[in-house]
Amino acid sequence: MIDVSELAPALSDPILSSMTFLNEVAERHPNAISLAAGRPDETRFDASALATYIERYRDYLRVERGLDDARIARTLFQYGPTKGIIPEVIAANLAVDEGITVDPQAIVVTVGCQEAMYLVLKALGAAGGDVVMAMSPTYAGLTGAAQIAGIPVWPVEGFGPSALRAAALQARAAGRRPRGCYVMADCANPSGVTMDLAARKAVLEVAHGENLLLLEDNPYSLFRETDARVPTLKALDMHGDVIYLGSYAKTVFPGARIGFAVADQPVTAGGQDVGTLADQLAKVKSMVTVNTPPLAQAAVAGFLLAHGYSLRTANAPTAALYRALRRRLLDGLRQRFPAGSGVTWHEPDGGFFVVLTVPFVADDAALEACAANFGVLWTPMHHFRDGATAVRSLRLSCSAVSPDQIDFALDRFADFVHSRCPVR
Amino acid sequence: MIDVSELAPALSDPILSSMTFLNEVAERHPNAISLAAGRPDETRFDASALATYIERYRDYLRVERGLDDARIARTLFQYGPTKGIIPEVIAANLAVDEGITVDPQAIVVTVGCQEAMYLVLKALGAAGGDVVMAMSPTYAGLTGAAQIAGIPVWPVEGFGPSALRAAALQARAAGRRPRGCYVMADCANPSGVTMDLAARKAVLEVAHGENLLLLEDNPYSLFRETDARVPTLKALDMHGDVIYLGSYAKTVFPGARIGFAVADQPVTAGGQDVGTLADQLAKVKSMVTVNTPPLAQAAVAGFLLAHGYSLRTANAPTAALYRALRRRLLDGLRQRFPAGSGVTWHEPDGGFFVVLTVPFVADDAALEACAANFGVLWTPMHHFRDGATAVRSLRLSCSAVSPDQIDFALDRFADFVHSRCPVR
Repeated sequence: MIDVSELAPALSDPILSSMTFLNEVAERHPNAISLAAGRPDETRFDASALATYIERYRDYLRVERGLDDARIARTLFQYGPTKGIIPEVIAANLAVDEGITVDPQAIVVTVGCQEAMYLVLKALGAAGGDVVMAMSPTYAGLTGAAQIAGIPVWPVEGFGPSALRAAALQARAAGRRPRGCYVMADCANPSGVTMDLAARKAVLEVAHGENLLLLEDNPYSLFRETDARVPTLKALDMHGDVIYLGSYAKTVFPGARIGFAVADQPVTAGGQDVGTLADQLAKVKSMVTVNTPPLAQAAVAGFLLAHGYSLRTANAPTAALYRALRRRLLDGLRQRFPAGSGVTWHEPDGGFFVVLTVPFVADDAALEACAANFGVLWTPMHHFRDGATAVRSLRLSCSAVSPDQIDFALDRFADFVHSRCPVR
Repeated sequence: MIDVSELAPALSDPILSSMTFLNEVAERHPNAISLAAGRPDETRFDASALATYIERYRDYLRVERGLDDARIARTLFQYGPTKGIIPEVIAANLAVDEGITVDPQAIVVTVGCQEAMYLVLKALGAAGGDVVMAMSPTYAGLTGAAQIAGIPVWPVEGFGPSALRAAALQARAAGRRPRGCYVMADCANPSGVTMDLAARKAVLEVAHGENLLLLEDNPYSLFRETDARVPTLKALDMHGDVIYLGSYAKTVFPGARIGFAVADQPVTAGGQDVGTLADQLAKVKSMVTVNTPPLAQAAVAGFLLAHGYSLRTANAPTAALYRALRRRLLDGLRQRFPAGSGVTWHEPDGGFFVVLTVPFVADDAALEACAANFGVLWTPMHHFRDGATAVRSLRLSCSAVSPDQIDFALDRFADFVHSRCPVR
């Protein structure tokens, strides 16, 4: 018998309980329609394609890398390099889709983007006063990873250069050393907001001036509402101030658990060059997961190779699907919550999410009641803030539901809202 | 430009530099024969078998679990349960091979045994004075994981119950709270020693009396010199004092990166039952890697299913191979270093390793010289102790070489030893 008080304090942090609570609500109400889940569409998954992807990567090793059968088998079966076996393939993908030029040596392939976040946060926490900033509301996975890595998150209230500078000054005034700031510049989760080009340049300038690394997380940029491109922060990064956190969960498939970090910052020790920050992340990784499963790397590389390194091309049908679902959700909200209804939302620039402001506290008890009595799940926004104080807003997701489910769920959701706040 | 002093202090710890140094020596001398590498034999790897394993697991999901194609695809492609998709298969394997009966709910499937170690160490470090003990010499991966998890390792000098009790008393006298002790009871890495049944029972008794969890790591028990079985600590565990750390790296293949923790200790919070320690480990895992790649889990499960859940059966040829290689190494040592030569070793009970005592300091410089001038790699033993103080012993490995390579490498190694210490 162990009491939680005898275990790591992080285990009692609200953010870790958040995830458990949200999963448990979903398990308690298996027939509820989930406007909470942020998982990608699964109707296109084809298990028989896995062998094809792996075969495509084996062809690449044979033809383009000149490996014989024994070395191919070793690449897939044996312990591999800590930084991974597919950095070159990832670098080619970044060049094609994002116009980012990066030395493959500066890439660490990770077990999902989550591990990339963890490694960066762990490496950056050098001393007691160090904090990592994050534009608020913040993806709960970042807050949780920071909790496990032992570096506090300092929220940036707002989304842009002046909010970033103000937060850095506040943190310093409070005796903290801000090491970096986590940013989703494209279709942020949960807010759905995208930063324009001018704001990106200004954020880079603030980061450089304040000696902050920007931790750019970019899972949704292929799912923007418009096809207009805004370069990523990393593509605009002139001074090595951006660590790019990559995810293939939404663009290839989540079960591969393949993400990566681009960390090309030079590192010195006693004045000597000791490689890049990627090499330091690899040192942490070698003691956490040793290396990312080559088999999973092979599946993702095979998918990329089969699509000429372009996820933009490969995901054109998926992007159209998400656009249609998002519009269905937004149209449905407009029909059910006209001006004056007390329910408002920010029109997202893309991605999977819409954040609603409602005229009641949208806490965990409200979610539980909605799931039990109205059969709809959503996410209380306090889980993207400090995890404790309930607020009058909630997140709806449209990535893992059908158009009919959206309509049905919104009818029930509207009934729920009216039950909390009768129409005046 | 970042100086390492601005990064996590763990990155400057000797143990993390150890791994980097040993890899770099090997890279600098690509033609040297490695009696350092502990990786498994790779001559049996067959890349075309991967699809067969995955297909075997899909059949299992279809036939034995009754899943339709859509649910099978979801199982392989989508985010999955944090504790993994194959705990039932692992539980069946433990029952067949080790006589361990465990609730699948108490299993967390991890990215290699390394992640299992990390999760346990992270969870157990509750307060500043907490330490984890480890029988010394200790696998460097444990020491490194503890460093990243932020819990110091307190060495147990010796291998058995009285050493364990003495170390626990010393730690407490020094104001530390020992939370557990890491033990390889079978063919320990690096020492090659196996604990007999009486010692195992006594170690369990000490652990229970001292309120210590035993972290049992068991990668080598299928590769014992004799076929006589000694039950694992977990099989003998009457009071829930053992956390079993499982690895499929040596028995299936390392590139799957599939390990697991069995952590069936009940956990309470404010007097309420909140599941098992496995659930707490899963909370940490959800913020480090989210879940272990289902594709890699599927490959390992398919392998287990194809062999009736028995790795003992599946590995009979591999065990015979390692036995032959180990005997070749030991015979070769006897021929080249007769009694009085100043070189001695402990006859291992199995596994991959032999530890030699030599009449000179076997430090990193000696290794570098041996690699450069004699073309043989080995591992200085200080990397399994505090990582700093060089000692007069070294580890030889025989798992990743051919019999001819062993003979050739031992000839060169004997020349090296004589160059350091001329025959009297």
